[in-house]
Amino acid sequence: MGKKITPRNEDYSKWYNDIVSEAGLAESSAVRGCMVIKPYGFSIWELMKSQLDKMFKETGHENAYFPLFVPKSLFEAEEKNAEGFAKECAVVTHYRLKNDPEKKGKLIVDPDSKLEEELIVRPTSEAIIWSTYKNWIQSYRDLPILINQWANVVRWEMRTRLFLRTSEFLWQEGHTAHATKEEAINETKLINDIYSDFAEKFMAMPVVKGYKSESERFAGAEETLCIEALMQDGKALQAGTSHFLGQNFAKAFDVKYADKSGKLEYVWATSWGVSTRLMGALIMSHSDDIGLVLPPLLAPIQIIIIPLIKSKDDSTRIQEKTDELFNSLKSNGIRVKIDDRENMSLGFKLNDSEVKGIPMRVVIGEKEIENNQFEVFYRHNLKKEPTAYENILELVSSSVSSVQSEMISESKKRLKKNTHEVNSYDEFKDLISNQRGFVIAGWDGSKETEEAIKIETKATIRCIPEGVDPEGVKCVYSGKPARYKVIFSKSY
Amino acid sequence: MGKKITPRNEDYSKWYNDIVSEAGLAESSAVRGCMVIKPYGFSIWELMKSQLDKMFKETGHENAYFPLFVPKSLFEAEEKNAEGFAKECAVVTHYRLKNDPEKKGKLIVDPDSKLEEELIVRPTSEAIIWSTYKNWIQSYRDLPILINQWANVVRWEMRTRLFLRTSEFLWQEGHTAHATKEEAINETKLINDIYSDFAEKFMAMPVVKGYKSESERFAGAEETLCIEALMQDGKALQAGTSHFLGQNFAKAFDVKYADKSGKLEYVWATSWGVSTRLMGALIMSHSDDIGLVLPPLLAPIQIIIIPLIKSKDDSTRIQEKTDELFNSLKSNGIRVKIDDRENMSLGFKLNDSEVKGIPMRVVIGEKEIENNQFEVFYRHNLKKEPTAYENILELVSSSVSSVQSEMISESKKRLKKNTHEVNSYDEFKDLISNQRGFVIAGWDGSKETEEAIKIETKATIRCIPEGVDPEGVKCVYSGKPARYKVIFSKSY
Repeated sequence: MGKKITPRNEDYSKWYNDIVSEAGLAESSAVRGCMVIKPYGFSIWELMKSQLDKMFKETGHENAYFPLFVPKSLFEAEEKNAEGFAKECAVVTHYRLKNDPEKKGKLIVDPDSKLEEELIVRPTSEAIIWSTYKNWIQSYRDLPILINQWANVVRWEMRTRLFLRTSEFLWQEGHTAHATKEEAINETKLINDIYSDFAEKFMAMPVVKGYKSESERFAGAEETLCIEALMQDGKALQAGTSHFLGQNFAKAFDVKYADKSGKLEYVWATSWGVSTRLMGALIMSHSDDIGLVLPPLLAPIQIIIIPLIKSKDDSTRIQEKTDELFNSLKSNGIRVKIDDRENMSLGFKLNDSEVKGIPMRVVIGEKEIENNQFEVFYRHNLKKEPTAYENILELVSSSVSSVQSEMISESKKRLKKNTHEVNSYDEFKDLISNQRGFVIAGWDGSKETEEAIKIETKATIRCIPEGVDPEGVKCVYSGKPARYKVIFSKSY
Repeated sequence: MGKKITPRNEDYSKWYNDIVSEAGLAESSAVRGCMVIKPYGFSIWELMKSQLDKMFKETGHENAYFPLFVPKSLFEAEEKNAEGFAKECAVVTHYRLKNDPEKKGKLIVDPDSKLEEELIVRPTSEAIIWSTYKNWIQSYRDLPILINQWANVVRWEMRTRLFLRTSEFLWQEGHTAHATKEEAINETKLINDIYSDFAEKFMAMPVVKGYKSESERFAGAEETLCIEALMQDGKALQAGTSHFLGQNFAKAFDVKYADKSGKLEYVWATSWGVSTRLMGALIMSHSDDIGLVLPPLLAPIQIIIIPLIKSKDDSTRIQEKTDELFNSLKSNGIRVKIDDRENMSLGFKLNDSEVKGIPMRVVIGEKEIENNQFEVFYRHNLKKEPTAYENILELVSSSVSSVQSEMISESKKRLKKNTHEVNSYDEFKDLISNQRGFVIAGWDGSKETEEAIKIETKATIRCIPEGVDPEGVKCVYSGKPARYKVIFSKSY
């Protein structure tokens, strides 16, 4: 049996690492800050990816693929964007190795292979993509361009944590081009809504939506929309961002279109992304001290069948029942697996399925068959439901959506319970340092206030929800009239 | 309308480039040797990927993800493999940029950010993966490991061509670990058979299967199995390889397992891959002087409906029929699209659908509706089939498989017609320089003969088919008894 999971209240951070490791999701690699995503972890990511991809395509987006490298001269073209990423770039300077003349069997970088222009491993692809769009866009007929790519990106992070912050990560990045400002702004909202729907319906993770303050915006964006989720330790996690880029990249790369009257205008841009960070959010949203808990819609295995064979005499009947149930579930679209590993005890298998967060489980043994009394075990609430064999399919099928709903409603309750509106700075400080969670408060809109609160409490403005009227509200820090009612929190 | 496609007999290479460009498949990027895969090209790759992924999963393989970078010390561990890729490596040496003190707004590589150990952008992942497997494998119970990854890799090619040879390309790379030599060898065969099935059934591209000669093997492999396809210009294209790696990587990274008796043994390995090069193979297998030709199973759009609206009076009835047909095809699993772009002539649309290789097309106009006489146009043979409206669905549904079959059988005929067995070197030279194609001939098995033939004729041994008896055959070059009957060809 694997090692025990550290309980959350003992060491939350260790608990997280234990789950990632014991459930077989990911591990650190030989490369500083880069992770290996293990098969079980990757299969969860594949489910996320396939659902998001479907949602993007249903809203008219297409996939494409752009180069991994960005020549330095393109990288620096949009100055704010370049400045934002310059300090964390992997830079390719040479294209060849040669034998080390001093150590047999070893290689050194061939100094003769120095590149004339250095290549940056993409930290994000606005620069390479907008330098390409320049050739694709002449007139209004070429717009909009609605492209997404699934790719790896590299940001040289100093402090890394599996899934949450790694030097290389997998993500999707959408890059759209529009004729009008309004259309581009609507696109950023559409995508932020897709992210929010995905988080709530599939990850069972309700989020708050809103705008970032200027200091938290994406480098090069005019506005950044985001979804923010609340983890079990009361810290916020930015789970997705959707940027209105204005005409910044069009100007940096001179991308203009002729409108219907033939007049040349700069193109409007958006970009948006979610990454393997969502895996971290999913893990921290639902898991408990036993191990991972997964919502059925994102569980690679929704139910595991464990045949319990005590003697050779039982074997045939149990195997038949097991196979029959497996086939019936599978042909009804349930993701099902049989755990028939030899030389492993029932106890090991039960524990293993719980650590891995498999939503449902059923054991098939001689006793169960004899009495036609089976039990479906639910991982999310650790409860068991008795059932006759002939009803298992129906029970499991309906449980996929009912468990999903229960998990969503649990998460919503938790979010509500941990969201507090405050009127005084004392109350604010007390909440942030003791209970944490989302704290709603008035903000005068100044950078100075935002910065002072950050220094004093480590809380940042997670987002400015849209359509919230600050009428009559005072800034929790300065006491001046609030310009916005915003959500503060400590964050990942 | 786009520019005309250069005919094959005028300039085959230009013909290929024209199709890639005019069908909107890919284009060169601002980064030397790297391509942009455009949405239409990428959607073909997505279909290939999804089918291959299904075939891998059905045979027990799982996906995972390993780092983009390989530290130099790991890269050089398996010497033959390192030697094979050292001369074409992108090397990351620094992790930060800073402002250029001499030019405002420009960036330079920060010399203080030099890495202690250089990182190689993976040209292939054996090294990083086997350094990981070391920690995953202790006993025979941990075997086999059957992992695949979909990833980008970089090989610094000097002469590049879109899809066929690019510095960055997309591929899948399988990396499996086994307890016995036999099991590993069987895995390489299983995969080569999957590749061959995929090429024939989905790409409508029959291939020959066999072993590579020693000089053509993957760097670090004991045996390389491959599939070789024949392009329309009579040159061979290596479309997939499956390597038996023996214990080379296990020894380089000290990966041992305890067998049932507790004895430690080195682990046996395979690796295998196909890449976006398959896109090049697909294009060159079927396309003609009009444009791209796609087999229906890999066509993102299997049929395009073009509504032909001449006056406003026609509009409603035509749109209704168009939508009705679209919905009926779509709900029957046909990939269908309506081309209702405004301000574009029928001629433009017909041409566009032909350049893009859309397998079927139907025009819906007032005349067609009036007479209930429609025509399904087939791209692969440029023929038309008349049909009543109520029979279109049935015709199109059955055509998906019949067109696929026709294309397979056409390709097989072409392969057969261009495969010749020869007995004299004169005949060999004549074929290779005039007709090209696959030339079957006896080979004495020596490197010297292989090299001499390559220098004199530019033909190489594409593969050594399994189970072909060389009894009584003489080497086409040396006249000595042949050790193998092999397939020679010029190649990409």
